[in-house]
Amino acid sequence: MAIKVEKIIVNQYKKPKLNSPILIGGLPGIGNIGKIAAEYLIEKLKMQKMIDIFSQYLPPQVFIGDDSTTFLVRNSLYYKKFPGKKDLMILVGDFQGTTQEGQYEMSYNVLEIARKYSVSMVYTLGGYSIGKIIESPRILGAVTSVDLKQSLIDNGVVFPKGEPGGGIVGSAGVMLGLAKELFSMKGACLMGETSGYFADPKGAREMLKVLCSILGIEIDLTDIEERSKQIEQITEKMQEEVQGKNQPKEDLGYFR
Amino acid sequence: MAIKVEKIIVNQYKKPKLNSPILIGGLPGIGNIGKIAAEYLIEKLKMQKMIDIFSQYLPPQVFIGDDSTTFLVRNSLYYKKFPGKKDLMILVGDFQGTTQEGQYEMSYNVLEIARKYSVSMVYTLGGYSIGKIIESPRILGAVTSVDLKQSLIDNGVVFPKGEPGGGIVGSAGVMLGLAKELFSMKGACLMGETSGYFADPKGAREMLKVLCSILGIEIDLTDIEERSKQIEQITEKMQEEVQGKNQPKEDLGYFR
Amino acid sequence: MAIKVEKIIVNQYKKPKLNSPILIGGLPGIGNIGKIAAEYLIEKLKMQKMIDIFSQYLPPQVFIGDDSTTFLVRNSLYYKKFPGKKDLMILVGDFQGTTQEGQYEMSYNVLEIARKYSVSMVYTLGGYSIGKIIESPRILGAVTSVDLKQSLIDNGVVFPKGEPGGGIVGSAGVMLGLAKELFSMKGACLMGETSGYFADPKGAREMLKVLCSILGIEIDLTDIEERSKQIEQITEKMQEEVQGKNQPKEDLGYFR
Amino acid sequence: MAIKVEKIIVNQYKKPKLNSPILIGGLPGIGNIGKIAAEYLIEKLKMQKMIDIFSQYLPPQVFIGDDSTTFLVRNSLYYKKFPGKKDLMILVGDFQGTTQEGQYEMSYNVLEIARKYSVSMVYTLGGYSIGKIIESPRILGAVTSVDLKQSLIDNGVVFPKGEPGGGIVGSAGVMLGLAKELFSMKGACLMGETSGYFADPKGAREMLKVLCSILGIEIDLTDIEERSKQIEQITEKMQEEVQGKNQPKEDLGYFR
Repeated sequence: MAIKVEKIIVNQYKKPKLNSPILIGGLPGIGNIGKIAAEYLIEKLKMQKMIDIFSQYLPPQVFIGDDSTTFLVRNSLYYKKFPGKKDLMILVGDFQGTTQEGQYEMSYNVLEIARKYSVSMVYTLGGYSIGKIIESPRILGAVTSVDLKQSLIDNGVVFPKGEPGGGIVGSAGVMLGLAKELFSMKGACLMGETSGYFADPKGAREMLKVLCSILGIEIDLTDIEERSKQIEQITEKMQEEVQGKNQPKEDLGYFR
Repeated sequence: MAIKVEKIIVNQYKKPKLNSPILIGGLPGIGNIGKIAAEYLIEKLKMQKMIDIFSQYLPPQVFIGDDSTTFLVRNSLYYKKFPGKKDLMILVGDFQGTTQEGQYEMSYNVLEIARKYSVSMVYTLGGYSIGKIIESPRILGAVTSVDLKQSLIDNGVVFPKGEPGGGIVGSAGVMLGLAKELFSMKGACLMGETSGYFADPKGAREMLKVLCSILGIEIDLTDIEERSKQIEQITEKMQEEVQGKNQPKEDLGYFR
Repeated sequence: MAIKVEKIIVNQYKKPKLNSPILIGGLPGIGNIGKIAAEYLIEKLKMQKMIDIFSQYLPPQVFIGDDSTTFLVRNSLYYKKFPGKKDLMILVGDFQGTTQEGQYEMSYNVLEIARKYSVSMVYTLGGYSIGKIIESPRILGAVTSVDLKQSLIDNGVVFPKGEPGGGIVGSAGVMLGLAKELFSMKGACLMGETSGYFADPKGAREMLKVLCSILGIEIDLTDIEERSKQIEQITEKMQEEVQGKNQPKEDLGYFR
Repeated sequence: MAIKVEKIIVNQYKKPKLNSPILIGGLPGIGNIGKIAAEYLIEKLKMQKMIDIFSQYLPPQVFIGDDSTTFLVRNSLYYKKFPGKKDLMILVGDFQGTTQEGQYEMSYNVLEIARKYSVSMVYTLGGYSIGKIIESPRILGAVTSVDLKQSLIDNGVVFPKGEPGGGIVGSAGVMLGLAKELFSMKGACLMGETSGYFADPKGAREMLKVLCSILGIEIDLTDIEERSKQIEQITEKMQEEVQGKNQPKEDLGYFR
């Protein structure tokens, strides 16, 4: 007797009719820029969960909530309808696939779902580690085809030559690569500059501004501004202590 | 010519009719609390083996018995009928699945079997490492739904807020997570406090008291009391030697 | 377009009719005892190759021969008919499966072949590392059932209680475990004592004596005696050099 | 709901009719000899891409081009027709398969394609690391059968006994091994001597000379000569600086 187990299991709770939705991928990554921005959008737009994805490519783990209930780690898809405009789907999750195989399979799986909903455009969100804290993080872009650049530039994305070097590793890269090569979908990766030393709401805030501009929507940014300020105060305090030890102000590399 | 090999092979020796059985998962883990308690129950209740599970997710190894016979490493399911009450199934084994994939597949596989037997409730047993030796280990709980808490509290389980932090990794967590999300089964994880430094019969003894209360059964705890005392004497002796070296009494971290 | 590749591919060159053959497994391992003994038997008995096994579980590698031709790494099965007696099959190879999964699949695959040929008994050969060089290595045994012990003892195998501790890891163990649990075949593991520091013809020579006794055959041991003597001279010389450095005579651990 | 994802996906853009083509494998490896030579041939012969191969066995990564467009990592097959002669197919790529399994599956997959095009001969290109910089790197050979040696020798390949020791690991080896054992194809591995410390156009230049001789074609080697000279100047300068530090001239091991 042998039992066959699927590597990825998709639990679909809602089957909305969506109009050429835009898909945003916001899984954990550098500075957690993508995850923070995506979860903020879901909260402020009061988006609804349509799908949970459980998988062997995620750690074998449950989280325990404040009420002592268990929560199996997962990726989830949320949606919101924008009557008269393109609708919105957002992918968030506790982890990216933990292996090379998992990276490909998880991304492919989400794109299969996206194809069923006739997704018209994929944005993946990521962080770009620059190794120091800066005042005004930029949002860098990479695109599946050149014609996508101008409208992104108009919305505040920058395309500095040679940045980021080496390419994009992980979900934010693979989803774009597979979207282009195997799904004939267009897409762009948006990367918020971050020190890379901690979860970075400041980079996420800049990401949210760009995303709202791209999507033509407005959301309340007060909460993320507040979190950004708190982080700023903490890092300023750390820097002051560092100053006494004669370190250049912006260099916090040793906090890693 | 190619031969297809299954990743998990289930050998079923007995096919009892069981009444809404309770399933207890007691695989090796922190302090081996779960394994010690589960094997003690099997022995004292004279439970019968119904299934052996062999798998590529377990180490490629045989043990050699005192009579020089080989024993392929495995997980096993035992059962006992309690006329007029819910019956009992217990999972024990030599190892947990050794990979992330193995963790998910082995747990899924056991739950498939559980579904066939209409298992009504899953308890997974684990240890909660607190890094020091204590007199009275508590049994902490986590549940698949809030309504399960009160009856567990009545049987001696505690639910301190924020404990254990970070969630539950491995079989004790994944079985609960999959039970809830994919099998619509209810479950709870019981975690015995332990130093985590060695196989800990004292934590297992407290676990057994709670389990007997939950199951409404009585078993002879003399043997596990005896083993707990032996361990206590050994650790006390170690602590005395440590005292001479000016260490705080309860801290045995360096024995790891 | 997608191409499905098998994980194990079996190339069968000859399809002999065999009479309840005995299968000997002699893959590389501790001290290479099993491999040396098995290859020596194949050479001296002029056995014929019937099957090559190629696999993703073996390293991605070819060897280059003295004539500059490439040789893809493999496992191979040889056979010899003994009219009026049980015939003989021997498994040899360049590597064991390199992963846990590979260990199980490769062993299962060989046992599937064995089943087709109605193999009556499986002997796996291995080494038992004792960490020092000794004069007369013993051949330790482990069996799938107690009734096999006496005849092995009569042929020179020893079954010291508690040795070897911890069990048997790898092909020599898994083949026996699967043979017993999933194929209802009987088997024994023969382990030659060895320092474990280098390929050890002396242990292999003792293994060959026991095997010939078990199989009721005679082979010319001159060549393996010669190789044993050469190794003895080399290790004696190394020990003499060590003596000058005040090391106990038998301890060569640092040559590892 | 579960989605099955293929481990290797082949995108075929052109389906040329080819005449018993010769297949050359030039994936990245030691000194990148094979990759540099293969890409140079593709460029100078203005070969056309027929197939892209995407796979879970390659890193989960996109590169970003100068125009900010993403490029999913891949292996690719190019072809060129030589009227009246055997046609040519060349395999190049960003990476070899990153796991043992990937090495076998990727190679098997390419050979499946080769079989469909009735490939008559497979040359795999590699580097042979000799740990020092030399003036005139040789091209060493290994063959699937002895009868292939003489014509290779006539074209400048050498077959020194015992070189290279240990065999050929990776794509250049596995493709030959599988070609011989499972596809009944003939093949040879050509290995350019290289220090192994950096991408080595000098070894690739010598490889190209031998390949042109074997294929009976002529290509413009000016560009690779130029790159070889640049590398020579850089390494000479490094060596001069080293000289001042009393190092033997050819030893650049510490640049690794």
